[in-house]
Amino acid sequence: MNVYLDWAATSVPDPDICRKVSECSTEFYGNPSSQHQEGQKASRVLEESRERCARALGVKASEIIFTSGGTESNNMVLLSFLRKPSRGTVILSPIEHPAILEPAEVLREAGYRIKFIKPEPDGIITVQTLEKALTEDTRLVTVMAVNNETGAIQPVSQLADAVHRYAAEHGRKIHFHCDAVQGTGKVPIDFSDSNIHSFSISGHKLRGPRGIGILVLKNQIQCVVQGGHQESGIRPGTENTPAIFGMSLALEQAMTNLDRNISQAHTLMDGLISRLSQDQAYTIIPQSRPEHPEKYSPYIISLAAVPVPGEIMARVLDDSGFCVGTGSACSNRKKSLSKTLEAMKVPEETSFSRIRVSIGYTTLQEDLESFMEALDRQSRIMLKTYRK
Amino acid sequence: MNVYLDWAATSVPDPDICRKVSECSTEFYGNPSSQHQEGQKASRVLEESRERCARALGVKASEIIFTSGGTESNNMVLLSFLRKPSRGTVILSPIEHPAILEPAEVLREAGYRIKFIKPEPDGIITVQTLEKALTEDTRLVTVMAVNNETGAIQPVSQLADAVHRYAAEHGRKIHFHCDAVQGTGKVPIDFSDSNIHSFSISGHKLRGPRGIGILVLKNQIQCVVQGGHQESGIRPGTENTPAIFGMSLALEQAMTNLDRNISQAHTLMDGLISRLSQDQAYTIIPQSRPEHPEKYSPYIISLAAVPVPGEIMARVLDDSGFCVGTGSACSNRKKSLSKTLEAMKVPEETSFSRIRVSIGYTTLQEDLESFMEALDRQSRIMLKTYRK
Repeated sequence: MNVYLDWAATSVPDPDICRKVSECSTEFYGNPSSQHQEGQKASRVLEESRERCARALGVKASEIIFTSGGTESNNMVLLSFLRKPSRGTVILSPIEHPAILEPAEVLREAGYRIKFIKPEPDGIITVQTLEKALTEDTRLVTVMAVNNETGAIQPVSQLADAVHRYAAEHGRKIHFHCDAVQGTGKVPIDFSDSNIHSFSISGHKLRGPRGIGILVLKNQIQCVVQGGHQESGIRPGTENTPAIFGMSLALEQAMTNLDRNISQAHTLMDGLISRLSQDQAYTIIPQSRPEHPEKYSPYIISLAAVPVPGEIMARVLDDSGFCVGTGSACSNRKKSLSKTLEAMKVPEETSFSRIRVSIGYTTLQEDLESFMEALDRQSRIMLKTYRK
Repeated sequence: MNVYLDWAATSVPDPDICRKVSECSTEFYGNPSSQHQEGQKASRVLEESRERCARALGVKASEIIFTSGGTESNNMVLLSFLRKPSRGTVILSPIEHPAILEPAEVLREAGYRIKFIKPEPDGIITVQTLEKALTEDTRLVTVMAVNNETGAIQPVSQLADAVHRYAAEHGRKIHFHCDAVQGTGKVPIDFSDSNIHSFSISGHKLRGPRGIGILVLKNQIQCVVQGGHQESGIRPGTENTPAIFGMSLALEQAMTNLDRNISQAHTLMDGLISRLSQDQAYTIIPQSRPEHPEKYSPYIISLAAVPVPGEIMARVLDDSGFCVGTGSACSNRKKSLSKTLEAMKVPEETSFSRIRVSIGYTTLQEDLESFMEALDRQSRIMLKTYRK
């Protein structure tokens, strides 16, 4: 039995939710757009699920757009700027997920100016940095809620407020988008009364089904992907009723238990950090994290045993039965050094040695204890080899 | 218990596949992009599923791109033309699904010329019509395999051959795309050695899971939606392993039983057509269909009891326990007359009265018999009211 410590890549699904999704598949199979009984039965499940998500997030049901996942939600917002009659500047951080960075390159190709706002060495983007970057032709600012590699919690509400102030002063409209995939249900974020115009959520990061996500949308946008007029005309395609139902259950659970889960996760993560800090073999990324645990999601940490390559360390841990990440699973295939760590000015050798440990709602104290034993054992062996 | 006759909107899912999908969700939950054991276990399921789909369709595994459904598959191809350095003409039929018609409007907005090739009154687009429409600046031709309202089977291989000939003669590249959502697994289509460069399939139309589809892609395209480098860099987002697995099972079943299923469906549909033809109250759409049953998918038929409004007829049938469609479920919310029937020059009053009956692999003879009884009964009542 493996100890799974890669929850930031995907969570261990809730078996109870899986069962309910399966039941929903056979019982509410109608196309929710169909007017007959089978369609309307499914449509009710869809709308009840939407209400459940809205309650959990403290937003309006009409603001919930179901998508196929976080990547699609992010793309919908960014690519909608392809349909604007004129171009301008898009401001984003270089520590965003590829699901933001890559569509931003499509915008650049289409004539937008892309401006990056760098995080401080602690991995956090400040309001001052953003304020300095804002220009009158800024159309979109996008900053993630929680970084997927370091766990750094971004001050998204304050960043959005700063954008709102600037936009109001200059009589402009600037859309503020937030990739909240690693944040929602993990750390407290107030989206209900903020200047954040849209944010993205993924089901499978929250023990919900794969292939389902949400875009919470408070502004009207014109998407590029078009088809049937589902989801208020924002997201076409036959609604994935069973996955939507499952996602609503997962989100409700995550939000209901947010405080309890976060306090459990802090106990686990703070213990892990304390163990890692005691051994000079390990570098916590960023090194200042132990002094400011409150600035980071307790579900994610990056660390390194320099000079052991992260990929090798992850491999030997895997052989010992511990699944850890080596950055964003989504960009593993690019085999490059982490752009996030580079932006934080983490030394290249540390970046090269990094592994990511991410925990979840069902991770136990003993999982992390046995992980630390394995890490200590493997580090001792590997360090001997690599320091030669 | 309802008699479900709206399979073209969505099929009744296979309970066995639903169960296997659910098992896969909990057993192969790893992110297939993760390098550890849980990731690699999931990755193997993903690649086995891809091989299964490729075998079923007679294409290469590398040509199978998993998407969130038919709408996304269609959009991927059409919207990729937004990234071309110059514009040109896009040729499509007016009887395409909104998942083609609507992204074509986005292309028009971006500077493409959109040219419609009309079907004959029998609902079928001829090679001659397409040949006349081709111009040297044509970039893309897109024609569906089977129309979702009339069941008309389009000669897509011949249409693609005509495009290929024209492109070769003029030293041009023209992409031929086919929306095969209503065709795949229903009628025989040879995609293995054709000039069709891409085609779209939906899982839920084939008793597979919701929220999963395939784009079979033989040409390289540059998509607008970007993110992680999953699916050969073509379709970003964490792979929906369980749904992909379920889709592969559904597709394999559909293709293995294609001939048996189609012959059963023809028996059922030909019987229904024969019953409808005997009663002057009913108009089959198109009226020539009974003479050429081979030109239509035996899974779909549109009919009308003029002047009873189709929506009303569908409603009273629903009250009697029969679920039928009133056109494309995906465009129900637009409440307009069918563009497909308009293009076929079906009189407005017939179009206004149309209902769509679509059957599936588990539809029984007695389902259609009881349906005909209900239709006859309701028609007699309704015709009295509406002919007054």
